[in-house]
Parts: sequence; C-alpha cells; structure tokens
Amino acid sequence: ASNKKLLILPGDGIGPEVMREVRRVIDWMGRRRAVSFDIDEGIVGGASIDAQGTPITDETVAKAKAADAVLFGSVGGPKWDSLPFEQRPELGILRLRKDLGLFANLRPALVMDPLVEASSLKADIVRGVDIMVVRESTGGVYFGEPRGVETLPDGKRRGFDTDVYHEDEIARVARVAFDLARKRRNKVTSVEKANVMQSGRLWRAVVGEIQKAEYPDVQLENMYADNCAMQLCSRPKQFDVILGSNLFGDVLSDLAAALTGSLGMLPSATLGAVDPTTGKRHALYEPIHGSAPDIAGKGIANPLAQILSFAMLLRWSFGMEEDAVLLESAVGKVLAGGLRTADIMQQGMARVGTSVMGEAVVREL
Amino acid sequence: ASNKKLLILPGDGIGPEVMREVRRVIDWMGRRRAVSFDIDEGIVGGASIDAQGTPITDETVAKAKAADAVLFGSVGGPKWDSLPFEQRPELGILRLRKDLGLFANLRPALVMDPLVEASSLKADIVRGVDIMVVRESTGGVYFGEPRGVETLPDGKRRGFDTDVYHEDEIARVARVAFDLARKRRNKVTSVEKANVMQSGRLWRAVVGEIQKAEYPDVQLENMYADNCAMQLCSRPKQFDVILGSNLFGDVLSDLAAALTGSLGMLPSATLGAVDPTTGKRHALYEPIHGSAPDIAGKGIANPLAQILSFAMLLRWSFGMEEDAVLLESAVGKVLAGGLRTADIMQQGMARVGTSVMGEAVVREL
Ligand SMILES: CC(C)[C@H](C(=O)O)[C@@H](O)C(=O)O
Ligand SMILES: CC(C)[C@H](C(=O)O)[C@@H](O)C(=O)O
Repeated sequence: ASNKKLLILPGDGIGPEVMREVRRVIDWMGRRRAVSFDIDEGIVGGASIDAQGTPITDETVAKAKAADAVLFGSVGGPKWDSLPFEQRPELGILRLRKDLGLFANLRPALVMDPLVEASSLKADIVRGVDIMVVRESTGGVYFGEPRGVETLPDGKRRGFDTDVYHEDEIARVARVAFDLARKRRNKVTSVEKANVMQSGRLWRAVVGEIQKAEYPDVQLENMYADNCAMQLCSRPKQFDVILGSNLFGDVLSDLAAALTGSLGMLPSATLGAVDPTTGKRHALYEPIHGSAPDIAGKGIANPLAQILSFAMLLRWSFGMEEDAVLLESAVGKVLAGGLRTADIMQQGMARVGTSVMGEAVVREL
Repeated sequence: ASNKKLLILPGDGIGPEVMREVRRVIDWMGRRRAVSFDIDEGIVGGASIDAQGTPITDETVAKAKAADAVLFGSVGGPKWDSLPFEQRPELGILRLRKDLGLFANLRPALVMDPLVEASSLKADIVRGVDIMVVRESTGGVYFGEPRGVETLPDGKRRGFDTDVYHEDEIARVARVAFDLARKRRNKVTSVEKANVMQSGRLWRAVVGEIQKAEYPDVQLENMYADNCAMQLCSRPKQFDVILGSNLFGDVLSDLAAALTGSLGMLPSATLGAVDPTTGKRHALYEPIHGSAPDIAGKGIANPLAQILSFAMLLRWSFGMEEDAVLLESAVGKVLAGGLRTADIMQQGMARVGTSVMGEAVVREL
C-alpha cells in the first residue's frame, strides 16, 4: 500500500502515448505488489492551451504543489509555434519549475551496454559513459529581468534578456552536484564562460568556495562551455558530474544525451529544496526527449524514457528503491531480449512499437 | 608583388610556434613567387600583459585597423587565469573584434577524407561533413550592458549579463550567412532559444524577414540551440550553414569543430562590413584551436590550422585565389603522404612535429 500522491501530466505529442505505458506498469504494481497511489491527471502545454486557453492553469499548479511527485510527459509542437511568447506551451513546464522551486534538473546520460552501437560515436569512445548533468533550472537567462523586445524611437527593434545569478542560487545547486558526485566518481566539472560573462565569473567563484568549505574531498574542475561541448564530443568518459547554469545545462545535457545515441531511453528529475520541517521536497520527473510531433500518434515512440522517469520517481520521491530496481531491471531484460523501438533499432534485433515495448516490460516484471 | 599590409599577432601558448611555420610559407612565396607583403608583427594577450601591462595596446589596435588583414594566433593560459576580469588575455581578441567591427566570425568544420578516422564519430556519420558556422561576434552577451558582479545590502553577491541584439546587428550577419549558403548547398540553419529568450525571438523574426525579402531562394530552417547540439552530434551531414549569436555560435562552432576530430586543422575568419567607398573590409584570421598551454613549447603542435588561416586570408582579403589554392593543396598532399602531428595521429602514419610539418608543406609548394 501507499498513499503517495502522484500527479500525471502527459502533455503533447508522444507524451500521452508513452504515458499510457507507465499506466500499464502502475496497474501491474496494483495487481501484483498491492501498491496503489493516489493518482490525479492533468493537461499541460498545447493540450491545455486548446482546452483552457493557457499552457497551465493555476489549479494544475496547485495540484502539482499538493502532490508528492509529478510525472511529466512533454510539451509543444508546430500547432502552437506561432502563438505569442506569453502563450507558448513551454510555459507549462517553465511555470512548474519556477512555482514549485524545482531548481536542480538532474539529467543522466548513460550508455547502456546493449545500446553502445546506437551511438553516432565510436563504441570505444562511448562504452561505459555515465554522466550526470546537474542543470540549474529556476534562474539565469530563462527568468532574468529585464527582458523584452522593444521598438526604438527610429522604429527599429531591440531584443534583450538578462542572465543573472544570486550567489545563493549557485550555492544550492552546486551542493546538489557535489552530493551526487560523492555517491558516484567524486568529480564535478563546473561549466561557464567566466572569461566573457560576469555571471559566469561569479558562478566559478561561488562553486569554488562551496567546494573548499564543504566538499574538499570532491574533485572540482572548471571548464568553459565551448570547451565542454568539444570534450563531450571527443572524450566523454572524462566526465562524472557536470554542473551548469540553466542555459548551458540545457544545451550540454542535450548534447550528453545525444551522444549516448538513445535519447528515447533517458529519464530526468527536477528537484526542489528539502523542507526542513517535513523533510519533503517537490519533484518532477520527465523524459529528456521532447514531444516529437513528427512521430506522435504513430505508435512507434519509445516508452522507456518515460518508464525510467517513473522508476526515478519511485526511488527518489516515494522511497520505493526495491520497486525502482525491479522496473529498471525489467527494462534491461527487455533490451537484452532484443526488442527495440525504431529510435534504437539495430541489425539483428526485433523492431516493435510503443505498446509492445510497454507490454514486454510488464511481462518481465 | 603585393603591397598588402599584413599584421601578425602570434599571441600565447602554441601561437608563436605555429606562426613560425606560416613565416616559412611567406618566405617561400617571396623567393619563388616574388610576392612580398608589408608585414608588421605585434604582441597580444598574455604576452602583451607581461610586456606592456595590458592585453592589447591602443597602438596595436591602430596597426590592426591600418592593416589589410590580421593573422592572429591564440591567447590565454593558466599563467594569467587569476587576473581580474578587466585584464584577461581574452580581451586582446575581444577588443580587436569590437574595435574593428568584425561582426561575422566564419568557422568552417570540414572533414577531410584522409582524416575521417580521426573523428570520435563513426566514419559513415562524418564522412563528407562540410559545415560553415557563422557566428555573430561583436554583440550579444559578450558585450551587452548592464553587466557586473554587485554586492547587495546584505553582503551577498549577484552576477549579471545582458544578452542583447539590435535588429540591424542580426540582419547584417544573417546576410553573410545567406550569401555564403548561395555559394554552398543553399541552406541556412538559424539557431536560438526563441522559446525562452526574447533576444532569440527577435533573432528568429529578423532572420525570417531577411530571408523572405532578400533570399527567397535559400532554404531557412530555425532550430533551438539545444536541439542543434544534439543534431550536430547525431546527424551532422544535415547542416550546411549554421547561423547563431555570439554565445551560441561560440559553443556550437566548437562542437562542430570537435566532431571533425581535427581541430588542429581548422582555420577561421572574422570579417567586418565592406566600406562602401573603398570596397575594403577589416578581417582577422585565426585557427579555431586555442593556445593549448599544455603542449606549448614542445614542438608538437599542429601548424596546419594556422597555415590554412593564412590561405583563407590570401583568398578573402588579398584576392590571391591562386596562391590560396596552391597552399591548400600542398596541405592536402602532405596529409595524403602520411605525415601527421600528434593530434591527428593514426596507425600506419608518420608522426612528426611542428617544424617538420611546416617544412613538408613548403616542400609540396
Ligand atoms: C521546453 C523548453 C522550455 C525546455 C528548456 O529549454 O528548458 C527544454 O528544452 C528542456 O530542456 O526541458
Ligand atoms: C578567447 C575567447 C574570448 C573566445 C570566445 O569565447 O569568443 C574563444 O572561445 C573563441 O571562440 O574565440
């Protein structure tokens, strides 16, 4: 049994179809392990714009705040591309991050052995890659003010954004990175452009101070963002934990994900601060992949990233380590058994669709 | 003969040693092709800090303005890492870009056939890759005001930068990209984060307007920066010209360079506006690779990027197409002959140092 409150937000594109496979897993858990959750489901992104005129309603944000964890699909698609800036589907996820204070976005890039060949990189370059990108996710240029597009007296336009960090914002996400490194290979690579950006200069200083004062046992390396992109591509195994701002974390985590060659496999978590009285923290789990409008509705999307996001949720928000391991090893067995969705298809394997993949995971459970 | 004015700025790290090999080429041109230049040499970056207390003097900037072209090495190194922000070696190149109005930084990422195996990516993914990144280089977050690190009343620090673009800045660099695309494979991928940044939203709008009004024959694709990083890693052949802001262009051009696996081979050019009366434009040429302090002084650096930067200079600033082709094909022959510096070494090839490589190029000329 479990009275944990779970909010499910499938979103747009392939979101609903991959989320269906998680539902299958949840049903199995209810039947076989007698675990049940207090589940609510909501709409977000383009789906919410269509039905409610806004990418996310206050009511949905309130539900997310009340939940023990949020399982998120993905948002966006060409249908909503021409909407004004203030009405984009992306605001659904951006508002959740901001309003729930989800400042630490954890994006693992893991190369699973059976999928080494799915990478565009050579096998010996990527075999064994296991990187955790920790991206700051409630600050920086994503939310900094002032921002806008203004028309100057001569009729010409000027667009501007502010990339800004307070030292406390840097310190708390740095601690998340150092804590994770301690449970991994004890190394943090902190990424910025301290050679050209003032916020980057502060970033480097604060991360260095936190390491010195609180994590002298963890190795800290500072790297410029351009060099990090280069190194990820040429020697990815050098990295353990990569720490970056909202913007650099966005680009570099996508790159790290891409080099595994199995984007459709990668989950992520976004965590808030631990409440000192309840010991709880807000958390949202979502696949790294987006809404993939080009393949939505075709039944060919890979549901494993969404399923593995749910496994992360079980482990980190619900304290159900055993069930998380069970689910992750079921996914491992399905892959070892040769089933592949189109995105990770290789010669000699059996190509299957979304629901066959989901069923196979349940069968292995 | 030629009375073209050339300013040579070797800079720091491996800069001086790779520049020496260009001098060898210039000497050969004087002896064999009776071409001579009006050459001046200056110091910049850490070398200038050490000798003159500033990363670049006004006098050197004035010389650069007076020159028909600048051949630049690279700046920076651990020796100067702890200097205050206002005194970094990087300011040498940043000030040259800004003061000479060098707004279009052209960074080709070309996979040469004999070097396909040097890439960390699989041969079939990178064979034939030929990308030109056009990076805006006098605006954006590199120069935007306000910027700074301030101490708040409670003693805490806050660092901030402004990413800002005027529509004219976007338009002029977009035109450079579209013009280049017309001479290539007719496609421009314009990169931003229009889904989260206001300057990105203006960027996308203006690039679209220029394409519609002036380049309807060129294909324009808009792509988010995170997705572009991903696509560069997984399917680089889809790209022809990539257009981005100063910051996105910095990161994505380094990534594009890295995936070729032969960073030590890649030249770049940074161009100013054409003066309507003289028909001239300021231009600076430099290798993509940095000062590589770890290998500086060892005589093992690859001089080919610096030599190929000089070839670009001959072609674009001095109108010496024939000499440029001669030099580029000499480089091709040296590689075909099996010589390799350490960075591009492969089995079965002959490993050589900086000066042997430079001599070999002159021998092929
Ligand atoms: C959907 C969008 C706002 C988003 C971002 O840029 O953060 C996406 O790229 C991501 O990484 O989750
Ligand atoms: C040296 C430095 C200022 C620079 C930059 O960020 O522009 C470098 O990375 C480059 O790309 O030329």
